Amino acid sequence: MSILVVGSVAYDTVETPFGKAEKVLGGSASFFAVAASFFAPVKLVGVVGSDFGEKQVSAFEGRGIDLEGLERTEGQTFHWQGKYSYDLNSRDTLRTDLNVFEFFKPKIPVSYRKAEHVFLGNIDPVLQRDVLDQVESPKLVACDTMNFWIEGKPDELRKTLRRVDVLLINDGEARQLSGEWNIVKAARAIRAMGPKTLVVKKGEHGVLMFSEHGSFAAPAFPLEDVFDPTGAGDTFAGGFVGYLAGAPDGSDHTFRRAIIMGSTLASFCVEAFSLDRLLLLTRPEIDERFRRFKQLTHFEEI
Amino acid sequence: MSILVVGSVAYDTVETPFGKAEKVLGGSASFFAVAASFFAPVKLVGVVGSDFGEKQVSAFEGRGIDLEGLERTEGQTFHWQGKYSYDLNSRDTLRTDLNVFEFFKPKIPVSYRKAEHVFLGNIDPVLQRDVLDQVESPKLVACDTMNFWIEGKPDELRKTLRRVDVLLINDGEARQLSGEWNIVKAARAIRAMGPKTLVVKKGEHGVLMFSEHGSFAAPAFPLEDVFDPTGAGDTFAGGFVGYLAGAPDGSDHTFRRAIIMGSTLASFCVEAFSLDRLLLLTRPEIDERFRRFKQLTHFEEI
Repeated sequence: MSILVVGSVAYDTVETPFGKAEKVLGGSASFFAVAASFFAPVKLVGVVGSDFGEKQVSAFEGRGIDLEGLERTEGQTFHWQGKYSYDLNSRDTLRTDLNVFEFFKPKIPVSYRKAEHVFLGNIDPVLQRDVLDQVESPKLVACDTMNFWIEGKPDELRKTLRRVDVLLINDGEARQLSGEWNIVKAARAIRAMGPKTLVVKKGEHGVLMFSEHGSFAAPAFPLEDVFDPTGAGDTFAGGFVGYLAGAPDGSDHTFRRAIIMGSTLASFCVEAFSLDRLLLLTRPEIDERFRRFKQLTHFEEI
Repeated sequence: MSILVVGSVAYDTVETPFGKAEKVLGGSASFFAVAASFFAPVKLVGVVGSDFGEKQVSAFEGRGIDLEGLERTEGQTFHWQGKYSYDLNSRDTLRTDLNVFEFFKPKIPVSYRKAEHVFLGNIDPVLQRDVLDQVESPKLVACDTMNFWIEGKPDELRKTLRRVDVLLINDGEARQLSGEWNIVKAARAIRAMGPKTLVVKKGEHGVLMFSEHGSFAAPAFPLEDVFDPTGAGDTFAGGFVGYLAGAPDGSDHTFRRAIIMGSTLASFCVEAFSLDRLLLLTRPEIDERFRRFKQLTHFEEI
């Protein structure tokens, strides 16, 4: 079953304690699409400028990603520049040049409209609803958002959330959106806004999922060398939604495995700059690390 | 098999967003002993003043804890006063009156010396070694410490660690002790100091265990009502060492279940002030929550 992803396609300039990468491929839709492409056909909707290179296009095409919905307009591609702290636990945004992304209006090609799985990347909640108005009857709508929209467009965000099945946000955003500090209470409040399933991303501390089946907790994979955390959350979402799209059912067991698959993909993402590691990844490597997640968390009943 | 615990027995005055408790039973050895007592006989070594009440003694006796090593001297019992932030994620120490604890020299009664499991609570590393010099040949030595000793007595702490099998500390302490930010690297460095097993406590984010068998990750139990986090770490240690002492072997499987048992006990501890919840706890309640940990973390292979 195919997946439609709408979000940013960008150039990132990233500095970590281990090095600097200048104008490398980034953006939420990019990380999501490449991660999801291991499990199901992916159709990408985004916008780039006339500076967007053939090398980047080839990276997507090499993963079989449908680019009919990748609009090209005059001007420069969205450019984000950030610098991570020595411990990678915080980052400063040094520069955000929205460029052509500033006036992005997602246009869904006719060939995309029957997509069964939709991922609404972190864009204006009004645009997220515009996307939903252009698709036929998706089986599952997953959505990301951020503090900028939670504060800036709370009513529009609420309207969007009513049409969302799975919301994926970080713990700080969950607390802000719900007004509840306690994460269990926050989850209940957010699920009452529409999403049947809430996935709370906690970075190096893993993921919590809350649904009608109860809660599920997964750790992040303990890595010795984290090189660049950029895109880990979107890569998680790509592995998660990708696995759901390729799975035979939407049971709680499937959702749990999807969380682990998202965590697996994210653990590869952070091993290199940009999409460098994801673009070299093979399915056997993914399955091997998934099994290591099982070893990491397994214990026997008493 | 019996457990010897050495540490503080205190009166705590605690303020949380939900209320205040004045001079209630606290201290690392108290929380540890009560948690461990569900699994094996516990022998406590500590010191209290002449103000230490019959009610507190009865609490220990009610759990079958051997108090022959609980010294009583003239003066006041150690008193700690703290106040938690609105989100319970940080606390200020308002007052620390060491009182009789200031000159504590652990004296191990003859009847304690064959204890197979020893837990060295967070005291001066020199005193921790004094304890080890007084016991015969324990099967397992577990140990806690804190930033105060890591900074203040690094050489003494190193000497103690050479004689420790399991070190239980929080993530900040692990980073400080090793000088490594990355927790996998920190664990390798600390295990090279002596402890075969390192247990890293991350509060609401759960626990990581590193040993010769690899790593194991467990979440904290997602609780809707956390009332008072005081003592959660020592309660974790009590459930962990207690389970190991009561288990038939020291296999990796047993250590993993012990981590979950520690997490289970800690999840009860935080539901009320002081030891109030632990003293009402029953073994069926413990086993039921252990099973819920399994539900919380279980996923199937792909």
